[in-house]
Amino acid sequence: MHDDIIDNSDTRRGRPATHRAFESAHLSGGWTGDAEAYGRSSAILAGDLLVAWSDDLFEEGIDQIAPERARAARRHYAEMRRDVTVGQYLDIAAETVPTPDREQLDLALLVASFKSARYSVQQPLLIGATIGGARPDQYQALRAFGHPVGMAFQLRDDVLGVFGDSAATGKPSGDDLREGKRTALIAFARQAVPAPVRRTLDELVGDPDLEEGQVRMLQDVIRESGALARVEDLISSYARDADRALSGVALENASVGALRDLARAAAHRTF
Amino acid sequence: MHDDIIDNSDTRRGRPATHRAFESAHLSGGWTGDAEAYGRSSAILAGDLLVAWSDDLFEEGIDQIAPERARAARRHYAEMRRDVTVGQYLDIAAETVPTPDREQLDLALLVASFKSARYSVQQPLLIGATIGGARPDQYQALRAFGHPVGMAFQLRDDVLGVFGDSAATGKPSGDDLREGKRTALIAFARQAVPAPVRRTLDELVGDPDLEEGQVRMLQDVIRESGALARVEDLISSYARDADRALSGVALENASVGALRDLARAAAHRTF
Repeated sequence: MHDDIIDNSDTRRGRPATHRAFESAHLSGGWTGDAEAYGRSSAILAGDLLVAWSDDLFEEGIDQIAPERARAARRHYAEMRRDVTVGQYLDIAAETVPTPDREQLDLALLVASFKSARYSVQQPLLIGATIGGARPDQYQALRAFGHPVGMAFQLRDDVLGVFGDSAATGKPSGDDLREGKRTALIAFARQAVPAPVRRTLDELVGDPDLEEGQVRMLQDVIRESGALARVEDLISSYARDADRALSGVALENASVGALRDLARAAAHRTF
Repeated sequence: MHDDIIDNSDTRRGRPATHRAFESAHLSGGWTGDAEAYGRSSAILAGDLLVAWSDDLFEEGIDQIAPERARAARRHYAEMRRDVTVGQYLDIAAETVPTPDREQLDLALLVASFKSARYSVQQPLLIGATIGGARPDQYQALRAFGHPVGMAFQLRDDVLGVFGDSAATGKPSGDDLREGKRTALIAFARQAVPAPVRRTLDELVGDPDLEEGQVRMLQDVIRESGALARVEDLISSYARDADRALSGVALENASVGALRDLARAAAHRTF
Protein backbone atom coordinates (compact mmCIF):
# COMPACT_ATOMS: atom_id res chain seq x y z
CA MET A 1 0.00 0.00 0.00
CA HIS A 2 2.83 2.38 0.86
CA ASP A 3 4.63 1.33 -2.33
CA ASP A 4 1.60 2.21 -4.44
CA ILE A 5 1.44 5.68 -2.87
CA ILE A 6 5.16 6.15 -3.49
CA ASP A 7 4.96 4.93 -7.10
CA ASN A 8 1.72 6.80 -7.66
CA SER A 9 0.21 3.55 -8.96
CA ASP A 10 -3.49 3.41 -9.73
CA THR A 11 -3.78 -0.37 -9.65
CA ARG A 12 -2.26 -3.41 -8.01
CA ARG A 13 -2.81 -6.88 -9.50
CA GLY A 14 -5.59 -5.52 -11.66
CA ARG A 15 -7.57 -3.99 -8.78
CA PRO A 16 -7.56 -0.38 -7.57
CA ALA A 17 -4.60 0.52 -5.39
CA THR A 18 -5.64 1.09 -1.77
CA HIS A 19 -5.25 4.87 -1.85
CA ARG A 20 -7.35 4.99 -5.01
CA ALA A 21 -10.05 2.77 -3.48
CA PHE A 22 -10.37 5.10 -0.47
CA GLU A 23 -10.29 8.10 -2.81
CA SER A 24 -13.13 6.59 -4.86
CA ALA A 25 -15.20 5.99 -1.73
CA HIS A 26 -14.70 9.65 -0.85
CA LEU A 27 -15.74 10.84 -4.29
CA SER A 28 -18.78 8.60 -4.58
CA GLY A 29 -19.84 9.41 -1.00
CA GLY A 30 -19.48 13.14 -1.63
CA TRP A 31 -17.56 13.43 1.66
CA THR A 32 -15.84 16.46 3.19
CA GLY A 33 -12.34 17.66 2.26
CA ASP A 34 -9.77 16.56 -0.28
CA ALA A 35 -10.47 13.09 -1.74
CA GLU A 36 -6.87 12.45 -2.82
CA ALA A 37 -5.47 13.38 0.61
CA TYR A 38 -8.09 11.20 2.32
CA GLY A 39 -7.17 8.28 0.05
CA ARG A 40 -3.48 8.71 0.75
CA SER A 41 -3.89 9.10 4.52
CA SER A 42 -6.14 6.06 4.73
CA ALA A 43 -3.68 3.95 2.74
CA ILE A 44 -0.75 5.07 4.92
CA LEU A 45 -2.71 3.90 7.99
CA ALA A 46 -3.95 0.72 6.32
CA GLY A 47 -0.33 -0.09 5.42
CA ASP A 48 0.75 0.58 9.01
CA LEU A 49 -1.94 -1.79 10.18
CA LEU A 50 -0.73 -4.49 7.78
CA VAL A 51 2.84 -4.05 9.02
CA ALA A 52 1.58 -4.54 12.58
CA TRP A 53 -0.53 -7.53 11.62
CA SER A 54 2.26 -9.21 9.65
CA ASP A 55 4.35 -8.87 12.79
CA ASP A 56 1.60 -10.42 14.91
CA LEU A 57 1.25 -13.29 12.42
CA PHE A 58 4.97 -13.87 12.45
CA GLU A 59 4.93 -14.04 16.26
CA GLU A 60 2.06 -16.53 16.14
CA GLY A 61 4.09 -18.60 13.69
CA ILE A 62 7.14 -18.82 15.94
CA ASP A 63 5.22 -19.07 19.20
CA GLN A 64 5.94 -22.76 19.71
CA ILE A 65 9.59 -22.94 18.69
CA ALA A 66 12.60 -22.88 21.01
CA PRO A 67 13.45 -19.37 22.34
CA GLU A 68 16.92 -19.41 20.75
CA ARG A 69 15.47 -20.19 17.30
CA ALA A 70 12.64 -17.68 17.74
CA ARG A 71 15.19 -15.00 18.59
CA ALA A 72 17.25 -15.79 15.45
CA ALA A 73 14.13 -15.91 13.24
CA ARG A 74 13.06 -12.53 14.62
CA ARG A 75 16.50 -11.13 13.76
CA HIS A 76 16.11 -12.21 10.12
CA TYR A 77 12.61 -10.82 10.02
CA ALA A 78 13.87 -7.48 11.36
CA GLU A 79 16.70 -7.42 8.80
CA MET A 80 14.29 -8.29 5.99
CA ARG A 81 11.99 -5.42 6.91
CA ARG A 82 14.87 -2.98 7.25
CA ASP A 83 16.37 -4.14 3.93
CA VAL A 84 13.22 -3.57 1.90
CA THR A 85 12.67 -0.12 3.40
CA VAL A 86 16.25 0.93 2.76
CA GLY A 87 16.02 -0.53 -0.75
CA GLN A 88 12.82 1.38 -1.46
CA TYR A 89 14.42 4.60 -0.32
CA LEU A 90 17.56 3.99 -2.41
CA ASP A 91 15.26 3.32 -5.35
CA ILE A 92 13.45 6.63 -5.13
CA ALA A 93 16.72 8.40 -4.34
CA ALA A 94 18.23 6.89 -7.52
CA GLU A 95 15.41 8.41 -9.55
CA THR A 96 15.70 11.74 -7.76
CA VAL A 97 19.29 12.58 -6.88
CA PRO A 98 21.67 12.81 -9.87
CA THR A 99 24.18 9.93 -9.77
CA PRO A 100 27.56 10.13 -11.55
CA ASP A 101 27.47 7.95 -14.67
CA ARG A 102 30.10 5.51 -13.46
CA GLU A 103 28.19 4.81 -10.20
CA GLN A 104 24.81 4.08 -11.78
CA LEU A 105 25.33 0.37 -12.36
CA ASP A 106 26.52 -0.22 -8.80
CA LEU A 107 23.59 1.74 -7.43
CA ALA A 108 21.10 -0.24 -9.56
CA LEU A 109 22.60 -3.51 -8.33
CA LEU A 110 22.56 -2.27 -4.73
CA VAL A 111 18.86 -1.42 -5.01
CA ALA A 112 18.22 -4.88 -6.52
CA SER A 113 20.14 -6.47 -3.67
CA PHE A 114 18.11 -4.73 -0.92
CA LYS A 115 14.69 -4.68 -2.54
CA SER A 116 14.69 -8.06 -4.22
CA ALA A 117 17.58 -10.37 -3.41
CA ARG A 118 17.59 -9.95 0.37
CA TYR A 119 13.94 -9.07 0.94
CA SER A 120 12.19 -11.43 -1.45
CA VAL A 121 14.46 -14.47 -1.43
CA GLN A 122 17.46 -14.62 0.88
CA GLN A 123 15.92 -13.54 4.20
CA PRO A 124 12.70 -15.54 3.73
CA LEU A 125 14.80 -18.65 3.06
CA LEU A 126 16.88 -17.97 6.16
CA ILE A 127 13.78 -17.40 8.28
CA GLY A 128 12.53 -20.80 7.16
CA ALA A 129 15.93 -22.37 7.71
CA THR A 130 16.13 -20.92 11.20
CA ILE A 131 12.64 -22.00 12.18
CA GLY A 132 13.28 -25.44 10.74
CA GLY A 133 16.52 -25.76 12.70
CA ALA A 134 18.91 -25.92 9.75
CA ARG A 135 22.48 -26.98 10.50
CA PRO A 136 25.19 -24.32 9.89
CA ASP A 137 26.24 -25.89 6.54
CA GLN A 138 22.63 -25.96 5.32
CA TYR A 139 22.06 -22.42 6.54
CA GLN A 140 25.20 -21.16 4.76
CA ALA A 141 24.20 -22.93 1.53
CA LEU A 142 20.77 -21.31 1.59
CA ARG A 143 22.30 -17.90 2.29
CA ALA A 144 24.70 -18.32 -0.65
CA PHE A 145 21.87 -19.61 -2.87
CA GLY A 146 19.22 -17.01 -2.02
CA HIS A 147 21.04 -13.83 -2.89
CA PRO A 148 21.98 -14.63 -6.53
CA VAL A 149 18.50 -16.09 -7.16
CA GLY A 150 17.00 -12.80 -6.04
CA MET A 151 19.45 -10.82 -8.17
CA ALA A 152 18.62 -12.94 -11.24
CA PHE A 153 14.91 -12.44 -10.50
CA GLN A 154 15.28 -8.66 -10.41
CA LEU A 155 17.46 -8.48 -13.54
CA ARG A 156 14.92 -10.65 -15.39
CA ASP A 157 12.26 -8.23 -14.16
CA ASP A 158 14.27 -5.34 -15.61
CA VAL A 159 14.50 -7.11 -18.98
CA LEU A 160 10.77 -7.89 -19.00
CA GLY A 161 9.99 -4.31 -18.02
CA VAL A 162 11.56 -3.13 -21.28
CA PHE A 163 11.26 -6.09 -23.69
CA GLY A 164 8.42 -8.12 -22.14
CA ASP A 165 5.45 -9.27 -24.16
CA SER A 166 2.48 -7.35 -22.79
CA ALA A 167 0.22 -10.37 -23.36
CA ALA A 168 2.43 -12.41 -21.00
CA THR A 169 3.38 -9.77 -18.41
CA GLY A 170 -0.01 -8.09 -18.18
CA LYS A 171 1.73 -4.72 -18.27
CA PRO A 172 2.11 -2.44 -21.30
CA SER A 173 5.31 -3.20 -23.20
CA GLY A 174 8.10 -0.81 -22.22
CA ASP A 175 6.42 0.12 -18.93
CA ASP A 176 9.76 0.61 -17.15
CA LEU A 177 10.82 3.05 -19.88
CA ARG A 178 7.78 5.22 -19.28
CA GLU A 179 8.30 5.03 -15.52
CA GLY A 180 11.97 5.92 -15.88
CA LYS A 181 13.20 3.07 -13.65
CA ARG A 182 16.96 3.29 -13.02
CA THR A 183 17.74 -0.37 -13.68
CA ALA A 184 21.02 -2.13 -14.38
CA LEU A 185 19.81 -2.54 -17.98
CA ILE A 186 19.53 1.22 -18.40
CA ALA A 187 22.87 1.79 -16.64
CA PHE A 188 24.61 -0.64 -19.05
CA ALA A 189 22.99 1.08 -22.02
CA ARG A 190 23.97 4.56 -20.84
CA GLN A 191 27.57 3.38 -20.38
CA ALA A 192 27.77 1.89 -23.86
CA VAL A 193 26.21 4.49 -26.16
CA PRO A 194 27.90 7.66 -27.49
CA ALA A 195 27.05 10.95 -25.75
CA PRO A 196 24.40 12.20 -28.21
CA VAL A 197 22.49 8.89 -27.97
CA ARG A 198 22.81 9.04 -24.18
CA ARG A 199 21.19 12.46 -24.22
CA THR A 200 18.28 11.08 -26.25
CA LEU A 201 17.95 8.15 -23.84
CA ASP A 202 17.89 10.54 -20.88
CA GLU A 203 15.26 12.68 -22.52
CA LEU A 204 12.93 9.81 -23.39
CA VAL A 205 13.35 7.40 -20.46
CA GLY A 206 10.88 8.55 -17.81
CA ASP A 207 8.48 10.21 -20.23
CA PRO A 208 5.06 8.81 -19.29
CA ASP A 209 3.67 9.62 -22.75
CA LEU A 210 6.12 7.56 -24.82
CA GLU A 211 4.45 6.23 -27.94
CA GLU A 212 4.85 2.67 -29.17
CA GLY A 213 7.24 3.74 -31.91
CA GLN A 214 9.46 5.48 -29.38
CA VAL A 215 9.39 2.42 -27.14
CA ARG A 216 10.51 0.23 -30.07
CA MET A 217 13.27 2.69 -30.90
CA LEU A 218 14.51 2.66 -27.28
CA GLN A 219 14.35 -1.16 -27.26
CA ASP A 220 16.55 -1.20 -30.37
CA VAL A 221 19.04 1.26 -28.88
CA ILE A 222 19.30 -0.78 -25.67
CA ARG A 223 19.67 -4.07 -27.58
CA GLU A 224 22.24 -2.70 -30.00
CA SER A 225 24.26 -1.09 -27.23
CA GLY A 226 24.98 -4.59 -25.96
CA ALA A 227 23.21 -3.81 -22.68
CA LEU A 228 20.65 -6.58 -23.09
CA ALA A 229 23.40 -9.15 -23.72
CA ARG A 230 25.32 -7.92 -20.68
CA VAL A 231 22.28 -8.25 -18.45
CA GLU A 232 21.62 -11.74 -19.84
CA ASP A 233 25.24 -12.65 -19.05
CA LEU A 234 24.80 -11.30 -15.53
CA ILE A 235 21.60 -13.32 -15.07
CA SER A 236 23.40 -16.49 -16.23
CA SER A 237 26.28 -15.77 -13.93
CA TYR A 238 23.97 -15.30 -10.92
CA ALA A 239 22.13 -18.49 -11.90
CA ARG A 240 25.45 -20.38 -11.93
CA ASP A 241 26.33 -18.94 -8.49
CA ALA A 242 23.00 -20.14 -7.18
CA ASP A 243 23.54 -23.56 -8.69
CA ARG A 244 27.00 -23.87 -7.21
CA ALA A 245 25.70 -22.95 -3.77
CA LEU A 246 23.53 -26.08 -3.84
CA SER A 247 26.10 -28.52 -5.20
CA GLY A 248 27.05 -30.99 -2.53
CA VAL A 249 24.69 -29.48 0.04
CA ALA A 250 23.32 -31.91 2.61
CA LEU A 251 19.62 -31.35 1.92
CA GLU A 252 16.96 -33.80 0.86
CA ASN A 253 16.85 -34.38 -2.89
CA ALA A 254 13.27 -33.14 -3.11
CA SER A 255 14.26 -29.88 -1.42
CA VAL A 256 17.22 -29.36 -3.72
CA GLY A 257 14.94 -30.03 -6.69
CA ALA A 258 12.42 -27.47 -5.47
CA LEU A 259 15.16 -24.89 -4.93
CA ARG A 260 16.58 -25.49 -8.41
CA ASP A 261 13.08 -25.06 -9.86
CA LEU A 262 12.77 -21.80 -7.96
CA ALA A 263 16.11 -20.56 -9.31
CA ARG A 264 15.19 -21.49 -12.88
CA ALA A 265 11.80 -19.82 -12.60
CA ALA A 266 13.39 -16.64 -11.24
CA ALA A 267 16.00 -16.39 -14.00
CA HIS A 268 14.04 -17.60 -17.02
CA ARG A 269 10.41 -16.59 -16.48
CA THR A 270 8.63 -14.68 -19.24
CA PHE A 271 6.07 -12.89 -17.07
CA MET B 1 6.23 11.07 10.55
CA HIS B 2 3.14 9.42 9.07
CA ASP B 3 0.96 11.57 11.31
CA ASP B 4 2.59 14.75 10.01
CA ILE B 5 1.90 13.68 6.41
CA ILE B 6 -1.71 12.88 7.30
CA ASP B 7 -2.22 16.17 9.17
CA ASN B 8 -0.29 18.08 6.52
CA SER B 9 1.83 19.57 9.32
CA ASP B 10 4.86 21.65 8.43
CA THR B 11 6.55 21.36 11.80
CA ARG B 12 6.90 18.99 14.75
CA ARG B 13 8.22 20.27 18.07
CA GLY B 14 9.45 23.43 16.41
CA ARG B 15 11.50 21.66 13.74
CA PRO B 16 10.52 20.88 10.14
CA ALA B 17 8.30 17.82 9.77
CA THR B 18 10.15 14.93 8.11
CA HIS B 19 8.37 15.21 4.78
CA ARG B 20 9.13 18.93 4.71
CA ALA B 21 12.80 18.34 5.54
CA PHE B 22 13.16 15.89 2.62
CA GLU B 23 11.22 18.27 0.40
CA SER B 24 13.60 21.12 1.33
CA ALA B 25 16.62 18.95 0.54
CA HIS B 26 15.08 18.27 -2.87
CA LEU B 27 14.45 21.94 -3.54
CA SER B 28 17.84 23.15 -2.40
CA GLY B 29 19.60 20.34 -4.29
CA GLY B 30 17.67 21.10 -7.47
CA TRP B 31 16.93 17.37 -7.84
CA THR B 32 14.78 15.59 -10.41
CA GLY B 33 10.99 15.22 -10.18
CA ASP B 34 8.36 16.51 -7.80
CA ALA B 35 9.83 17.80 -4.52
CA GLU B 36 6.61 17.38 -2.53
CA ALA B 37 6.12 13.77 -3.67
CA TYR B 38 9.77 12.99 -2.88
CA GLY B 39 9.36 14.48 0.60
CA ARG B 40 6.21 12.48 1.22
CA SER B 41 7.60 9.19 -0.09
CA SER B 42 10.78 9.57 1.94
CA ALA B 43 8.82 10.29 5.10
CA ILE B 44 6.55 7.27 4.54
CA LEU B 45 9.65 5.08 4.32
CA ALA B 46 11.42 6.80 7.21
CA GLY B 47 8.29 6.19 9.31
CA ASP B 48 8.24 2.54 8.24
CA LEU B 49 11.87 2.25 9.33
CA LEU B 50 11.05 3.77 12.72
CA VAL B 51 8.19 1.31 13.19
CA ALA B 52 10.61 -1.53 12.44
CA TRP B 53 13.28 -0.10 14.75
CA SER B 54 10.85 0.49 17.60
CA ASP B 55 9.92 -3.15 17.26
CA ASP B 56 13.57 -4.19 17.35
CA LEU B 57 14.17 -2.03 20.43
CA PHE B 58 11.17 -3.53 22.15
CA GLU B 59 12.48 -7.03 21.45
CA GLU B 60 15.88 -6.05 22.86
CA GLY B 61 14.13 -4.75 25.95
CA ILE B 62 12.28 -7.99 26.64
CA ASP B 63 15.08 -10.29 25.55
CA GLN B 64 16.01 -11.37 29.06
CA ILE B 65 12.59 -11.81 30.63
CA ALA B 66 10.70 -15.07 31.02
CA PRO B 67 9.05 -16.32 27.77
CA GLU B 68 5.56 -16.16 29.27
CA ARG B 69 6.00 -12.52 30.28
CA ALA B 70 7.65 -11.62 26.97
CA ARG B 71 4.67 -13.12 25.14
CA ALA B 72 2.20 -11.09 27.21
CA ALA B 73 4.23 -7.88 26.80
CA ARG B 74 4.33 -8.46 23.04
CA ARG B 75 0.54 -8.84 23.04
CA HIS B 76 0.12 -5.44 24.71
CA TYR B 77 2.60 -3.89 22.33
CA ALA B 78 0.66 -5.29 19.35
CA GLU B 79 -2.63 -4.02 20.77
CA MET B 80 -1.12 -0.60 21.42
CA ARG B 81 0.08 -0.32 17.85
CA ARG B 82 -3.24 -1.49 16.45
CA ASP B 83 -5.16 0.88 18.72
CA VAL B 84 -3.30 3.99 17.64
CA THR B 85 -3.65 3.14 13.95
CA VAL B 86 -7.36 2.45 14.26
CA GLY B 87 -7.73 5.65 16.32
CA GLN B 88 -5.90 7.69 13.70
CA TYR B 89 -8.14 6.32 10.99
CA LEU B 90 -11.31 6.99 13.01
CA ASP B 91 -9.99 10.51 13.55
CA ILE B 92 -9.60 11.28 9.85
CA ALA B 93 -12.86 9.49 9.08
CA ALA B 94 -14.61 11.69 11.66
CA GLU B 95 -13.39 14.78 9.81
CA THR B 96 -14.34 13.33 6.44
CA VAL B 97 -17.48 11.23 6.61
CA PRO B 98 -20.60 13.08 7.84
CA THR B 99 -21.67 11.77 11.24
CA PRO B 100 -25.25 12.16 12.53
CA ASP B 101 -25.35 14.87 15.21
CA ARG B 102 -26.33 12.52 18.02
CA GLU B 103 -23.34 10.19 17.33
CA GLN B 104 -20.65 12.88 17.29
CA LEU B 105 -19.91 12.89 21.01
CA ASP B 106 -19.57 9.09 21.15
CA LEU B 107 -17.31 9.13 18.11
CA ALA B 108 -15.08 11.85 19.60
CA LEU B 109 -14.77 9.85 22.83
CA LEU B 110 -14.04 6.67 20.88
CA VAL B 111 -11.22 8.39 18.98
CA ALA B 112 -9.87 9.73 22.29
CA SER B 113 -10.02 6.23 23.74
CA PHE B 114 -8.02 4.64 20.90
CA LYS B 115 -5.57 7.43 20.10
CA SER B 116 -4.84 8.66 23.61
CA ALA B 117 -6.23 6.61 26.47
CA ARG B 118 -5.19 3.18 25.22
CA TYR B 119 -2.16 4.11 23.13
CA SER B 120 -0.51 6.77 25.30
CA VAL B 121 -1.33 5.63 28.81
CA GLN B 122 -3.14 2.33 29.38
CA GLN B 123 -1.13 -0.04 27.18
CA PRO B 124 2.27 1.44 28.10
CA LEU B 125 1.40 0.99 31.78
CA LEU B 126 0.33 -2.60 31.13
CA ILE B 127 3.50 -3.32 29.15
CA GLY B 128 5.51 -2.13 32.13
CA ALA B 129 3.32 -4.06 34.55
CA THR B 130 3.72 -7.22 32.49
CA ILE B 131 7.49 -6.89 32.17
CA GLY B 132 7.76 -6.13 35.87
CA GLY B 133 5.71 -9.18 36.77
CA ALA B 134 2.73 -7.40 38.33
CA ARG B 135 0.28 -9.53 40.27
CA PRO B 136 -3.26 -9.77 38.83
CA ASP B 137 -4.66 -7.24 41.33
CA GLN B 138 -1.91 -4.73 40.53
CA TYR B 139 -2.36 -5.30 36.82
CA GLN B 140 -6.13 -4.76 37.05
CA ALA B 141 -5.64 -1.58 39.08
CA LEU B 142 -3.25 -0.18 36.47
CA ARG B 143 -5.65 -1.09 33.68
CA ALA B 144 -8.53 0.65 35.47
CA PHE B 145 -6.30 3.65 36.23
CA GLY B 146 -4.69 4.12 32.80
CA HIS B 147 -7.76 4.52 30.65
CA PRO B 148 -9.45 7.43 32.49
CA VAL B 149 -6.10 9.19 32.87
CA GLY B 150 -5.66 9.03 29.09
CA MET B 151 -9.22 10.25 28.53
CA ALA B 152 -8.68 13.19 30.89
CA PHE B 153 -5.42 13.96 29.11
CA GLN B 154 -7.14 14.10 25.72
CA LEU B 155 -10.10 16.15 26.94
CA ARG B 156 -7.68 18.64 28.53
CA ASP B 157 -5.88 18.73 25.18
CA ASP B 158 -9.18 19.55 23.48
CA VAL B 159 -9.81 22.40 25.92
CA LEU B 160 -6.29 23.78 25.47
CA GLY B 161 -6.63 23.50 21.70
CA VAL B 162 -9.50 25.98 21.83
CA PHE B 163 -8.90 28.05 24.99
CA GLY B 164 -5.19 27.52 25.63
CA ASP B 165 -2.82 30.42 26.17
CA SER B 166 -0.52 30.43 23.15
CA ALA B 167 2.41 31.56 25.34
CA ALA B 168 2.02 28.36 27.41
CA THR B 169 1.04 25.85 24.71
CA GLY B 170 3.45 27.08 22.03
CA LYS B 171 0.63 26.82 19.50
CA PRO B 172 -1.54 29.65 18.19
CA SER B 173 -4.66 30.11 20.33
CA GLY B 174 -7.67 28.38 18.77
CA ASP B 175 -5.49 26.07 16.69
CA ASP B 176 -8.01 23.20 16.91
CA LEU B 177 -10.73 25.53 15.58
CA ARG B 178 -8.71 26.33 12.46
CA GLU B 179 -7.88 22.64 11.99
CA GLY B 180 -11.52 21.66 12.43
CA LYS B 181 -10.81 18.89 14.94
CA ARG B 182 -13.93 16.92 15.80
CA THR B 183 -13.44 16.90 19.57
CA ALA B 184 -15.86 16.15 22.40
CA LEU B 185 -15.82 19.88 23.19
CA ILE B 186 -17.14 20.71 19.73
CA ALA B 187 -19.68 17.87 19.87
CA PHE B 188 -21.05 19.21 23.20
CA ALA B 189 -21.25 22.73 21.77
CA ARG B 190 -23.03 21.58 18.61
CA GLN B 191 -25.58 19.67 20.73
CA ALA B 192 -26.31 22.67 22.93
CA VAL B 193 -26.66 25.60 20.56
CA PRO B 194 -29.75 26.47 18.45
CA ALA B 195 -29.70 25.49 14.78
CA PRO B 196 -28.65 28.86 13.31
CA VAL B 197 -25.67 29.08 15.69
CA ARG B 198 -24.79 25.47 14.83
CA ARG B 199 -24.68 26.44 11.17
CA THR B 200 -22.29 29.30 11.97
CA LEU B 201 -20.12 26.92 14.02
CA ASP B 202 -20.02 24.44 11.16
CA GLU B 203 -19.05 27.15 8.70
CA LEU B 204 -16.23 28.56 10.80
CA VAL B 205 -14.75 25.50 12.51
CA GLY B 206 -12.19 24.09 10.07
CA ASP B 207 -11.50 27.38 8.31
CA PRO B 208 -7.70 27.69 8.31
CA ASP B 209 -7.92 31.45 7.88
CA LEU B 210 -9.94 32.26 11.02
CA GLU B 211 -8.98 35.65 12.41
CA GLU B 212 -8.38 36.33 16.09
CA GLY B 213 -11.75 38.03 16.48
CA GLN B 214 -13.51 35.00 15.00
CA VAL B 215 -11.58 32.69 17.31
CA ARG B 216 -12.67 34.79 20.32
CA MET B 217 -16.26 34.73 19.13
CA LEU B 218 -16.17 30.92 18.76
CA GLN B 219 -14.58 30.61 22.22
CA ASP B 220 -17.49 32.65 23.64
CA VAL B 221 -20.08 30.54 21.84
CA ILE B 222 -18.51 27.32 23.10
CA ARG B 223 -18.20 28.63 26.67
CA GLU B 224 -21.73 30.03 26.78
CA SER B 225 -23.22 26.84 25.31
CA GLY B 226 -22.10 25.08 28.49
CA ALA B 227 -19.80 22.79 26.49
CA LEU B 228 -16.66 23.89 28.31
CA ALA B 229 -18.29 23.20 31.68
CA ARG B 230 -19.45 19.78 30.50
CA VAL B 231 -15.96 18.86 29.34
CA GLU B 232 -14.51 20.07 32.66
CA ASP B 233 -17.07 17.90 34.47
CA LEU B 234 -16.05 14.94 32.31
CA ILE B 235 -12.37 15.54 33.04
CA SER B 236 -13.12 15.65 36.78
CA SER B 237 -15.14 12.50 36.53
CA TYR B 238 -12.33 10.65 34.71
CA ALA B 239 -9.86 11.97 37.27
CA ARG B 240 -12.04 10.57 40.06
CA ASP B 241 -12.25 7.20 38.27
CA ALA B 242 -8.46 7.14 38.03
CA ASP B 243 -8.14 8.03 41.69
CA ARG B 244 -10.55 5.34 42.75
CA ALA B 245 -8.65 2.73 40.74
CA LEU B 246 -5.62 3.33 42.95
CA SER B 247 -7.36 3.38 46.29
CA GLY B 248 -6.38 0.35 48.31
CA VAL B 249 -4.08 -0.99 45.59
CA ALA B 250 -1.16 -3.03 46.83
CA LEU B 251 1.62 -0.95 45.32
CA GLU B 252 4.53 0.85 46.98
CA ASN B 253 3.61 4.28 48.29
CA ALA B 254 6.18 5.95 46.06
CA SER B 255 4.64 4.32 42.98
CA VAL B 256 1.13 5.34 43.95
CA GLY B 257 2.39 8.88 44.51
CA ALA B 258 4.01 8.95 41.06
CA LEU B 259 0.83 7.64 39.43
CA ARG B 260 -1.30 10.26 41.20
CA ASP B 261 1.12 12.96 40.01
CA LEU B 262 0.78 11.61 36.47
CA ALA B 263 -3.02 11.69 36.71
CA ARG B 264 -3.03 15.24 38.05
CA ALA B 265 -0.62 16.43 35.36
CA ALA B 266 -2.76 14.85 32.64
CA ALA B 267 -6.00 16.42 33.85
CA HIS B 268 -4.82 19.83 35.01
CA ARG B 269 -1.88 20.82 32.83
CA THR B 270 -1.93 24.21 31.12
CA PHE B 271 0.31 23.33 28.16
